[in-house]
This record gives sequence, C-alpha cells and structure tokens, in this order.
Amino acid sequence: MTESELKRIISSIRGADGAAIDAARKRQTELAKPPGSLGRLEELSIRLAGITGKVKNSLEKRRILVFCADNGVVREGVAVTPQSVTLSQAVNMTKHRTGMSALADFFGDGTEIIDVGINSDLRHPGIIDRKISRGTNDIYIEPAMTRDECLTALEAGIEAADRAKTDGIEAVGVGEMGIGNTTTSAAVLSALTSATAEAVTGLGSGLSQEAFEHKKEVIARAVALNRPDAGDVIDVLSKVGGFDLAAMAGAYLGLAANRIPAVADGFISVVAALCAVRLCPAVSDFLFIAHASKENGSRIAEAELGIAPILHLGMRLGEGSGCPLAFQIMRGACAAMNGMATFGEASIDDGYLANIPEKEF
Amino acid sequence: MTESELKRIISSIRGADGAAIDAARKRQTELAKPPGSLGRLEELSIRLAGITGKVKNSLEKRRILVFCADNGVVREGVAVTPQSVTLSQAVNMTKHRTGMSALADFFGDGTEIIDVGINSDLRHPGIIDRKISRGTNDIYIEPAMTRDECLTALEAGIEAADRAKTDGIEAVGVGEMGIGNTTTSAAVLSALTSATAEAVTGLGSGLSQEAFEHKKEVIARAVALNRPDAGDVIDVLSKVGGFDLAAMAGAYLGLAANRIPAVADGFISVVAALCAVRLCPAVSDFLFIAHASKENGSRIAEAELGIAPILHLGMRLGEGSGCPLAFQIMRGACAAMNGMATFGEASIDDGYLANIPEKEF
Repeated sequence: MTESELKRIISSIRGADGAAIDAARKRQTELAKPPGSLGRLEELSIRLAGITGKVKNSLEKRRILVFCADNGVVREGVAVTPQSVTLSQAVNMTKHRTGMSALADFFGDGTEIIDVGINSDLRHPGIIDRKISRGTNDIYIEPAMTRDECLTALEAGIEAADRAKTDGIEAVGVGEMGIGNTTTSAAVLSALTSATAEAVTGLGSGLSQEAFEHKKEVIARAVALNRPDAGDVIDVLSKVGGFDLAAMAGAYLGLAANRIPAVADGFISVVAALCAVRLCPAVSDFLFIAHASKENGSRIAEAELGIAPILHLGMRLGEGSGCPLAFQIMRGACAAMNGMATFGEASIDDGYLANIPEKEF
Repeated sequence: MTESELKRIISSIRGADGAAIDAARKRQTELAKPPGSLGRLEELSIRLAGITGKVKNSLEKRRILVFCADNGVVREGVAVTPQSVTLSQAVNMTKHRTGMSALADFFGDGTEIIDVGINSDLRHPGIIDRKISRGTNDIYIEPAMTRDECLTALEAGIEAADRAKTDGIEAVGVGEMGIGNTTTSAAVLSALTSATAEAVTGLGSGLSQEAFEHKKEVIARAVALNRPDAGDVIDVLSKVGGFDLAAMAGAYLGLAANRIPAVADGFISVVAALCAVRLCPAVSDFLFIAHASKENGSRIAEAELGIAPILHLGMRLGEGSGCPLAFQIMRGACAAMNGMATFGEASIDDGYLANIPEKEF
C-alpha cells in the first residue's frame, strides 16, 4: 500500500451520523423509564446509531481480529514469557482454547487469527498469512521496521476490515498476540503523547520490580534513540512500534471506513486505536473500549481517546479477551433500545398516570 | 409459615463446598494464562463451584424473580412516581417491555412476576398471585405489617426458590417493583446497621433536593417511631420493611437452601440479601451482586455483605435490570473455566516452552 492509497482511505472516513444520534437520543427519552436510568446502555445504543445510521441495531454477527507478531525488543529481557508463546498461543486460538477464543466460541463470535510477523516459518491452515517478516528489529538498537513495512502492516488491517464488511459483520473486536508488545505499545504511546516511560509502562504479564525498571529504561532509550516524529504516526509505528500495532491501527481505519463498530481491548489495542485516531480523528466515533486494562499507560490512552471502558473485571490476559463480554453488554444496550415500551406504549404518560385496559386482567 | 418452619429451613442451609472451591482454584492455576489474569472471572467461577460442588458449570437455565408490592409510606411524598406505576410496570413486565424484562427476554432468561402486595384487586394471568394485602401500612405512622404477614411474605420468596429448583434453574436473579421501596430499604438498612438516615438515603428515581431532605426525615422517624430490634430481622422487616423486601429475603434463603446461585441487583435487592444473611450467614456463599447501585446505602450494604458488584454501567432502573447482563458475565466465567486449555494441553509447560507438534502445520 502506498502513502497516497492510505491517504485516500483516510479521507473517505466520515464521522458519526448526527441525525441518527439525535433520533436515538430522542427515543431513549421516550422509553418508559426514569431519564438516564439505563446509564451507559443508553450511551452505547446512541453511539451505535451514529455508526449505522439506524436507531435500532443488533450485533448478531460479530468477529474478533487477532493480529499476531513478534518483537525484536524481547532480546532486551522486557517480557517474562518466551517469544515462542506468540506462535503457540496463535495456534491455540485456532482451537478456541485460549481465554479470548474460548469466550468468543461460547458466545458465538467468529475469530480471525492473522499472522503479520510471527517469528516462525511454519504455516497453519487456521491462521491467515500476512507475515511481513519474522518479527521486528530490536527498537532498543534500531527502528522496528521500514516505513514500507509499516504501510504493508496497516494494509493487512484494512483488508481484515474489508473482509468483515463483505461477510456482513456488525461489530469487530481488535485483539493481539505478541510477546513484548506492551513494551512497543508503551514506546508508541510515549512518542505520541510525550508521556514519560515511567507514566506509560506497566508490568506486562508479570515482571519483577527489577525487570520493570529495566523495561522503563528500554522504552525511554528506544524513543530517545529512534526519535520518532510525534506528528507522523507512520514514523512512530515504524520506529518504535510493531507489526501487530500497525495492523491493528489499519483495522480501526478500515472499520471506520466501512462504518463497523470497533471494540478495542487491552493496552496494545487501545494504543493502536489512538494511532488510528491520530491518523483520522473521525475514527473515534466508531470506537468502544471493552475492558479497562491494568497497564499504567491505558489511563493515558483512554483519556486521549475520550472513551471509557465498558467493563472493570480486573482482567489482564490480552488477546482481546474482553471483547466477547463487552459485545454482550452492547447487545444488551440494543435489546433495551429495541424491546422497551415507550411511555405511550406502556400506558404510563408523562404524568405517570397508569391506564391499563381492563381486558388485560 | 410459622417461625419454627422458617428456623428449620435456615438450619438446613450449608455453606460453600470447600473441596469444590479448592478444586476450582487449582484448575484456574492450571489454565494456560498468567496467574490471576482472568480477574473476577476466576473468582466467579470458583464461587460457582462452591455452590454447585462442580468445577465446571453452565448457567443455561436462568430466571429472574420480580417481587411486586406497594408501600404505605408513599403517602408521605417520598417518591416522584405515583403508586399506580407498581401495577402498570408489573403488567408491562409480563409483556417483556420494561428494561429488565426486555433484556431478560433477549438473553433467554425466564421471568416470574410475583404480586406480594400490589395496591389493586386486579388479577393478571402472567402475574403469580401471592398478595398479602393491598400494600403495607405507612411506616411513618405505624409498623408496615404484622409479624405473621412478614412470615407469609418470606414464604412466598421461599416458594419461588423451590419452584426454581423444581424447574432445574441454574441461576436466579432477584428483582422488585414497588414505588416507595428505596425508602423502606433505607429504613431497614438503617435499622440493621445503625447507619444514619443521611448515610443510607438516596435520590430514588429522581427526587428534588427538598424532597430528598424530607425522605431522610421520614426514614429517620420511621425507625425512631417503630423501634425495630436490630437483632431480630423479622421484627425489622415487619416494622419498617415491605412485602417485597421480605419476600426477596425469603427467596435468598430458599435459593441458598436449594444451592442455586442468587444474583442481587439494585439497592432494594441488596438490602433484602443483607436481611437473609443476617438470618443465616451461610447465605452469603450463594450471593452475587449484578450491578453497582447509585443509591448511597448500597455501598454500606455491599460492604456488610463483603461482595463487590460485577458491573458498573451507571444503571439505576431497578427491577433487577442488571441481572440479565451479569448472567452473561457469569456465563463467560464458566466458559473460560470450561473451554480454556491447561498448560499441559496448550503445549506450554511451566517454563513456557512451546512444543507444537509438526503435524499441526
């Protein structure tokens, strides 16, 4: 994909449908309940209307995209888990035996496992092959990838969004598998926001305090050494990001272009969403955040996006594991909008006078 | 129901199955994920094991009980909504057109609408008739009900739990409909915990500041006038409670006796759960709280129970409207426990060495 092709896609993205949002908001005031009493279910239903242009929505066809890639920076000892787990868990996802995939399978969400850079030459029939190379370079030493490689990764994400559209998918979760990717995500977030390594770095899958201090040093140096241009998201992703992050950012762009609700989940996914929003602010109209991440930087990324997570269950598994659960809350928001009676229908008028026909009894 | 019959049921309740809890906790450590990374899903799956005695559970058959009753105290102007709405919304629930019932219908949860004291002589084929009388007395002036009436209400709840057991229901939500019942619930909570009216009172369905001050005065006087005995839950419910609260407390006792997971939702439901736990502490092993209520007193009741709500979505609709959503999270907790691979099965051993057979590729 060329830069001009990317620009064309970005320029095709339109924000939320204001008329549909107004109509959905009006409908919520007409439903027989105290004003605002459905809380965030009201907000979710109204935002979905802005995406689809319809007041009543269903999210019957759902899919979770999992972009898998390895990161050269694991050589610096920033992860407790060996790199080989990226491949083994990608394979386990095809069998619906990981956290995310077991949940997705149970709730009837489809999954697409997409290899954009696993450090292996093995091919698996259940994994879509968009491998750019066997993992990125070590950002502690050099840029993660070339600008062209970054555009290729973005394209893999855009293609996945286009497949979702072709398949009639009504909501898409964006997850990942890639050992070392909390480090690259923290570096990208630091580069984009000027937040310090201290502020953006978390414990990942469970680092010791010593390893945690080292991880912060690695992130600070990666940003200082590579000097990514905060105003050029492709430069940031190329220099201190990862194939997974770039592909996920592409997926968010493609989902917005196709007007499909996109659900971010976890630190990596939320940072990728922020990259997409920096490339095209209108993308934020299509974004939801499934579960609040425990990683320090997530609060910063969520605040930048201005979007609050739907769930707070203390999960920190990654993969997009919050998406299947958040989808159910979003479906509930639709069910309330679609199924509840209005004051008129409920025979409870604005003055709350009951007026139940005798024949009901 | 006599006091001795109630005592017999209470003495039949056994707490969680410790061996099943240990086995479930062990299984969670064996699943291929960083320790604790499923957060509260792990806790939910472990607590469910303690209830059923099985490590792997499903919550395929679910039901929400809605106890409906009127409260004499509405004469004091403590609610913005007229009393007639108790009846009209009870009828609307039978059509699945209220918030809770629309959600329940969508997610495949059954509902039982039970009249324990609606202020109407009308009968509806979709509403189970256990009416004790047409609403309680005004607790601002006199006790809400007699001790015998309270026992009859408790019995209605116990019967509903027994029906759930007979019908093979695997999880039960406990909701309510009764204008004025945040006032009675606050009075009961104040009586049980010695918390002040200031601390336990909330805005209900949307009182003005002036009406809110008056509501607190009504609650304080109701407790001072009727002098409920904090050590005698039946006395508290009789003097300052309601038919709905008493029946809900009975439902929690009956669900624990039948070893069925019970999901409280909303201020009234959580206060009723506290009543049941005061009657029989082992009931807490069977309790979950669906959604965090905005009513002030809820934090006090939740802390007394030592149980944290599953969801925080800013809902304040009552009815048990959080239950259908919380059921989905609980089902997810079961799906992860049931569907995820162990480290051995995932070919990721304790040292995280990947060992994927070549034939996979």
